[in-house]
Amino acid sequence: MKLAFIGLGKMGFPMARNLLLSGHQVTVYNRTREKAERLEADGAIVANSPAEACSSAEAAFSMLSDDKAAVELVLGVDGIAAGLPKNAVHLSASTISVGLVRRLTEEHARAGHDFLSTPVFGRPDAAAGRKLIVLVGGESPVADQMRPLLEALGRAVFFVGTEPWQANLLKLCGNFMIASMMGSFGEAFAAIRKGGGDQRTFFEVMDELFGSPVYKNYGGNIVDQKFEPAGFELKLGLKDIHQLLAATGEINSPMPIASVLRDLLISAMANNQGTLDWSSIARISARSAGLAG
Amino acid sequence: MKLAFIGLGKMGFPMARNLLLSGHQVTVYNRTREKAERLEADGAIVANSPAEACSSAEAAFSMLSDDKAAVELVLGVDGIAAGLPKNAVHLSASTISVGLVRRLTEEHARAGHDFLSTPVFGRPDAAAGRKLIVLVGGESPVADQMRPLLEALGRAVFFVGTEPWQANLLKLCGNFMIASMMGSFGEAFAAIRKGGGDQRTFFEVMDELFGSPVYKNYGGNIVDQKFEPAGFELKLGLKDIHQLLAATGEINSPMPIASVLRDLLISAMANNQGTLDWSSIARISARSAGLAG
Amino acid sequence: MKLAFIGLGKMGFPMARNLLLSGHQVTVYNRTREKAERLEADGAIVANSPAEACSSAEAAFSMLSDDKAAVELVLGVDGIAAGLPKNAVHLSASTISVGLVRRLTEEHARAGHDFLSTPVFGRPDAAAGRKLIVLVGGESPVADQMRPLLEALGRAVFFVGTEPWQANLLKLCGNFMIASMMGSFGEAFAAIRKGGGDQRTFFEVMDELFGSPVYKNYGGNIVDQKFEPAGFELKLGLKDIHQLLAATGEINSPMPIASVLRDLLISAMANNQGTLDWSSIARISARSAGLAG
Amino acid sequence: MKLAFIGLGKMGFPMARNLLLSGHQVTVYNRTREKAERLEADGAIVANSPAEACSSAEAAFSMLSDDKAAVELVLGVDGIAAGLPKNAVHLSASTISVGLVRRLTEEHARAGHDFLSTPVFGRPDAAAGRKLIVLVGGESPVADQMRPLLEALGRAVFFVGTEPWQANLLKLCGNFMIASMMGSFGEAFAAIRKGGGDQRTFFEVMDELFGSPVYKNYGGNIVDQKFEPAGFELKLGLKDIHQLLAATGEINSPMPIASVLRDLLISAMANNQGTLDWSSIARISARSAGLAG
Repeated sequence: MKLAFIGLGKMGFPMARNLLLSGHQVTVYNRTREKAERLEADGAIVANSPAEACSSAEAAFSMLSDDKAAVELVLGVDGIAAGLPKNAVHLSASTISVGLVRRLTEEHARAGHDFLSTPVFGRPDAAAGRKLIVLVGGESPVADQMRPLLEALGRAVFFVGTEPWQANLLKLCGNFMIASMMGSFGEAFAAIRKGGGDQRTFFEVMDELFGSPVYKNYGGNIVDQKFEPAGFELKLGLKDIHQLLAATGEINSPMPIASVLRDLLISAMANNQGTLDWSSIARISARSAGLAG
Repeated sequence: MKLAFIGLGKMGFPMARNLLLSGHQVTVYNRTREKAERLEADGAIVANSPAEACSSAEAAFSMLSDDKAAVELVLGVDGIAAGLPKNAVHLSASTISVGLVRRLTEEHARAGHDFLSTPVFGRPDAAAGRKLIVLVGGESPVADQMRPLLEALGRAVFFVGTEPWQANLLKLCGNFMIASMMGSFGEAFAAIRKGGGDQRTFFEVMDELFGSPVYKNYGGNIVDQKFEPAGFELKLGLKDIHQLLAATGEINSPMPIASVLRDLLISAMANNQGTLDWSSIARISARSAGLAG
Repeated sequence: MKLAFIGLGKMGFPMARNLLLSGHQVTVYNRTREKAERLEADGAIVANSPAEACSSAEAAFSMLSDDKAAVELVLGVDGIAAGLPKNAVHLSASTISVGLVRRLTEEHARAGHDFLSTPVFGRPDAAAGRKLIVLVGGESPVADQMRPLLEALGRAVFFVGTEPWQANLLKLCGNFMIASMMGSFGEAFAAIRKGGGDQRTFFEVMDELFGSPVYKNYGGNIVDQKFEPAGFELKLGLKDIHQLLAATGEINSPMPIASVLRDLLISAMANNQGTLDWSSIARISARSAGLAG
Repeated sequence: MKLAFIGLGKMGFPMARNLLLSGHQVTVYNRTREKAERLEADGAIVANSPAEACSSAEAAFSMLSDDKAAVELVLGVDGIAAGLPKNAVHLSASTISVGLVRRLTEEHARAGHDFLSTPVFGRPDAAAGRKLIVLVGGESPVADQMRPLLEALGRAVFFVGTEPWQANLLKLCGNFMIASMMGSFGEAFAAIRKGGGDQRTFFEVMDELFGSPVYKNYGGNIVDQKFEPAGFELKLGLKDIHQLLAATGEINSPMPIASVLRDLLISAMANNQGTLDWSSIARISARSAGLAG
């Protein structure tokens, strides 16, 4: 297929590369052009704007860091919406707000494009190894048609609902589940320490009990105080919790645990932890208990 | 070894049986005598009181449902402490309060007994299959000496600390981690439903993401509304959270997420869910969001 | 002085009238024109647009219900900003978001206007009786100059800071203090009832203890379940809490009690209490405790 | 009347003195005897034990600092229960746990005594000036009979219910209302400061808005950081919140705001604020927001 890929950050780069390696023709765009040129060896064509990248695409992916970038590169002059041919599909993989996804849905409908929201779970190494978990929200026939493309990116593809934003709500809820696990680890670790116990033992017991790579990964980071380099920056984690609270505020669904996490993450921001890994949320619990670190 | 086992409930019965099958001589006591007699086929001797069961034991296990039962059967007339020979060991596997474990520690020291607290993670089927996770708190040499007995009960044995109550604090923190997962599932499921989405899809994505049997088990119960028969009754789960809050209140370690869970579980009690499985905590989130069930 | 007044709702109408009664010349605008015409007897001139009302004003007041109305009537075609002469002052009394006040500040600066944010505490009867508490944020000399006008509206005028949005942050914090009082009443009343006690006695003791008309008013409403007609609709109260959380999220100030109130109010929305008085937040606590009403 | 008064601390001393000044014959007991002797000038008789003080009393008051003191001086050898004549009344003014009040009720019934629980609101200066708010729980005829005595102690007497513990639950709920006000002030002050605003202005506006001496008193303490000497020690405030959570846990009434306060107060304890005034709860909010003090 003739594809476009807009946004070659830590996640977008390996995803675009996997599409190239799967035999598709991919025209790419990135704000920092050098990063795009690094894909030329794999056969990518480099464009000067999102619109140009999309001009003859059957399907265009975007993987952008936040709402602001998405507004600019999708809806701006020379954006995806301006360049994409009628009846082509935009697959938006960015973790952006439910409100913005609704707006993109409307704008693309107006322009005669199909639109899917396809946020993913996984870190850059999972993206490189085609191990992402891929969500899809949007019209079923379009989602079915695009499924082979999405399967080239991850280990599992889940159809979430016919409204694109539903995929984003699910993504935000998933991130909340991870944040809740970390926040709970944080308060349990503090209690264990104040009781004179050993954090590592608690971690090992939880590893045995839950048997989950996610617990092993994040719990281990907390025990080792290994918050740099950040796998996922705390400020981005807080952004996602803010988006979740905004989205659930609109549909009137209470989130008391997410609210606690919000306040812990805000306290972490106020204590200069914004660029540390979000597992450093545990530090706030330690400090509240009068513990160092 | 010559052992005693006091308390043959859903957990104690298979644990005692596994000690018998491992070749130990076990004298057992249970308030309902018939249950004890069912172990005679496996070689158990049935005693008329905890004291009698312990009278010639090298080590005595207890597995009792709550503080009240433990006070009575350990410290009462004809209790374990009254019957156990000097220098013998009491291994208390009950999930009881940190305060009571401290008291048992003192009383046994006064009586010249060794004392270990050995709470376990796992359900009755895990107990039967020697799949429990066993914690040990108490003097290291005693713990080392008893390790083979504990290994006969489970898949992993963790030494927690030299204070017996530290094992109970860890146990309570572990139950908190499970409760937090369920509470978070509850609020996420409610949000997904209010967004018009499908709970089962969210559950499947989380199963893929966390890859944990605990998530599969409890998350699945919630999606299926399968709260009866209870694997672990909600009122016992609340008891554990109350005990955790009492223990952390004494050592001044804040527990904001545990506090949210306390209030959700109390609301569940107020809505007659005490004997349902504790995963029914999710119902409270649903109801707060104006959803049925 | 030559004044304009835009927005003659429950609050704006008596405020505009008081300015007329103080001897000022006031040109008024309201979307529903009849309401404006009712002020003609007091000397008001009725304009066809906010811009027209402001065209020869030295100072223009606005009292609008939410951000959406404020964007339209201040910044829209024929809005206040379009009509107000250079060097004239806009006094924005609306309880709107901190973000929007920042935007209004910039837009008015660009247009050469002075700008004050002047939100008020008080209900329509307080507005009629010149009993409002008036806040002022903005450049001090302008605030000083406008003080006599503001004193014509209320019983006390407080200068909050040189940034107009600071007045709005203070207003939102004040509404939070009221909401917190009501939420606390709600959970205490529920506890008293579950203990077999009498709500009214608790209310009377609190009335004696705090000696505050605010406690008397709201606490009395809750005891009497008098939630209609709403003095202040619950959905507007939730809007204010959302705005407070947004504003404090930006400056990284945790709000754990406000977060609890958010979730209670959202639960109230989910249970169709949006148009009841916001003191009906207490119903949610009652219901969580398994009580009717 | 012939009275006994047990416990002459900061509160008990002026209360006993007021009973003397009202013309009653009062025999007093205090652990530190010198304090008791200081009342001899006002006509008090000093006893060597609670039992002795009560031996010929028609009514005996107790005002003790916590459950431990109450158990000892009421139920211990030479305690009130041992000395009080049949049909005499014990009026327990201590803020003790609901559980202990239930136990005292039973023990006194067994001994043929009448029993009232009469906790009070107010500080030592209010006790001296007969300005306390007095609660009464217990059998109505007894409460009616004792009313003149209680009226000699305060500005208002409220009958709460026929179960003595109901007065204590109400007292704990009242202290929760005060704590909630202080906690809310704490998070609002932090937000105002982070927004570059002035705490004092916010305080003055709230003083104007609520018009309550309680707001003026505690809010002023927070603005001035005047936490020593403590009017009411934070550790005692936490004790009351713990007691409230225990009592509401038994009757299954959720307390989400009280739970937040619990965690803030625990964090304050962990930061060595136990002997500061409980309004120093506000410091925790400031610190969470990254602010000094």
